[in-house]
Parts: sequence; structure tokens; C-alpha cells
Amino acid sequence: MCAFSKRIIIGVDPGTVVTGYGVVEVSRGQLDRVASGTVRLPGGGLQTKLSELYARVLQLLDEYAPGEVALESVFHHRNVQSALKLGHARAAIMLAAIHRGVPIYEYSPKEMKLGVVGSGGATKEQVAFMVRQILRIDGKMRADESDALGLAICHAHRMKRPAVAPRSWEQYVKTHPERIKS
Amino acid sequence: MCAFSKRIIIGVDPGTVVTGYGVVEVSRGQLDRVASGTVRLPGGGLQTKLSELYARVLQLLDEYAPGEVALESVFHHRNVQSALKLGHARAAIMLAAIHRGVPIYEYSPKEMKLGVVGSGGATKEQVAFMVRQILRIDGKMRADESDALGLAICHAHRMKRPAVAPRSWEQYVKTHPERIKS
Repeated sequence: MCAFSKRIIIGVDPGTVVTGYGVVEVSRGQLDRVASGTVRLPGGGLQTKLSELYARVLQLLDEYAPGEVALESVFHHRNVQSALKLGHARAAIMLAAIHRGVPIYEYSPKEMKLGVVGSGGATKEQVAFMVRQILRIDGKMRADESDALGLAICHAHRMKRPAVAPRSWEQYVKTHPERIKS
Repeated sequence: MCAFSKRIIIGVDPGTVVTGYGVVEVSRGQLDRVASGTVRLPGGGLQTKLSELYARVLQLLDEYAPGEVALESVFHHRNVQSALKLGHARAAIMLAAIHRGVPIYEYSPKEMKLGVVGSGGATKEQVAFMVRQILRIDGKMRADESDALGLAICHAHRMKRPAVAPRSWEQYVKTHPERIKS
């Protein structure tokens, strides 16, 4: 088995109600969908929502053991209240990744669209179409789901430097088993 | 020793750069400052800041073992970018409290001022003055610090129902030792 043979990336599109996720495997230049879906936050207070989102993201990281998280960054938002809520959701996702030692890479919606469709002004439908083409997926998906897969694809194509370095070589080796020559 | 004899409350005033905290002991109707100060977030990326804030709040909860967190809630903010950042900081604080099983009670700045000064439109200086009077503190404090102590005082005076119930009686007993008759 050659080094760098396999990478698992999870893309996460955070939302105040629904968070999309998409797990992609990169193997010898080919991309495949491993899993994708949405995390719908329960009703109840903000604390219940945050606690649940953090726990669900930990669960996804444990289940699919991605070596990298591609997260949507935000620079503009329609209003202050929804920006505050989105900040809460993003922090819960980031803390789950930080606590599992998985590096996070942020991409703006424009960067994602550019990476997947080739145009920063692409529509959600164009993103979904290209995501289905690249990953050979039949059938429809929620926009949150295809956006999350789009983030993983964008990251697979355009490897950024991690914003936070792994905490130790032991951690790095654990989260990047594909980098170990056997 | 009678039941309800002692409560430890930590007030937290989250900020995007500096977060104030104030630990207050309530014993037989008297309020005393146990500790107060600020957590200044390090430079570097958002992930470093979040990770540090979460860790520092855990540390404060472990050191002072408060049974309740009084957190400033926000409904208005000057702009979308700072609201997003504040959302990140608030979530890191809330997750630390959730993970230690300490119930969080939220108070708006207006509620805090009303509880401490008696007027929802009080200035920061008026809050600081009343906080110093109530807790018999000499000398000056940062506004973040007196606001955090103000939140703890406000909560001591006006016990709200927890937004999230303790996860179990065992947890409740652990975080409310003062409620156990000896």
C-alpha cells in the first residue's frame, strides 16, 4: 500500500436549525461519498441544541474517523440575531473537532462554489448537480447535504494549511493513518 | 448546619476579546466575592481562541465549583460580524458548563442592571458602584469584571428556573451540595 493512498474528509455546513454533513473518501485521486445527511437540532432551549449538536458531531467523527474537517466560514449574514445563532452552532462543531484533534479548514461559500462548480456565483442547484456528478450520486439531496459534500470536495481539491496544527505527532498519526507507510 | 446555607454562583460576561467572570458566595442572605477577573483570549485563529476559552471556563468551574452559572444573554448587537464572534464565545462558555453539569441561567444586560442597580438603564459606572457596595470591594475593577459580578448578584437575588434541568439527581446533588441536609 502506498503512502497518501486514502483520506477521509468530512464537510460540515452549519445552520441554526439544520446542519448538513458529507463524508468523502479520497483514494488515488478518486472521490467517493461515504455518508451524508443532516443533523436537525431538537426544540427546546439553546443549551439543549448546542449540547446535541456537539454530541452528534463527536459521533460522526468517531463513526467515520475523518482526518480533516472542511467547515463553511461566514462573513456576511442577513441579520444580527441569526448571525449570533450561527456563531453558537459553528462553535459547537469546532469544539467537537478540536476535542477529537481533527484539524478544521474553513472555506467561504464562494470558495466552495469555485472549487466545485468553477464559479463563485454558482446557484445551490448548480452545486448539487456538480456534487452528484463528481461523486456519482443518483437522486436528490437536501441543499445542506450537497453543500456539505461540496465543502469536502473543495477541500480535497484544494488542500489548505490547517488553522490549528495537530497537538502531537501521536495525534497526527492517529488522524492521518493514510500517511503511514506499511 | 441548615440546608440552603451556601450557594456559589459564577457570573460570566462573554466578550469577543475579553470575558469577565465573578464568583460570588451566598451564605445566610449575605453575598461575598470569592474571586473575579477576566479571561483574555490569545491571538491566533478562532479555533485557538475557542479552545482556550472553553478550557479556561472548565478550569474556573473546577476551581470554584459553582452550582450555577449566570450568563449574559444578548438580543441586540452592533453588527453581524461581532454578533457571530460573540456567538462563538458564548457557545464555548455554555458547552463548558453543560459538560460539567452546571445549569446556566441567562440574564439580559437590562435584567442585570435592574437586579443590581434597580434601573434597567443604569450606566456601567453605576453597576460597578453598586457591585462594590454590595460585595464590600475597595478599589477599581474592569467593567467586564463588575458586569460579571453583577450577573452573579442578579441571579442570587432572582433565582430563575434552569433553562436545562440537571441530567440526573446524582448530578444535581453533586452540583448543589448545599441542598443536602446533614
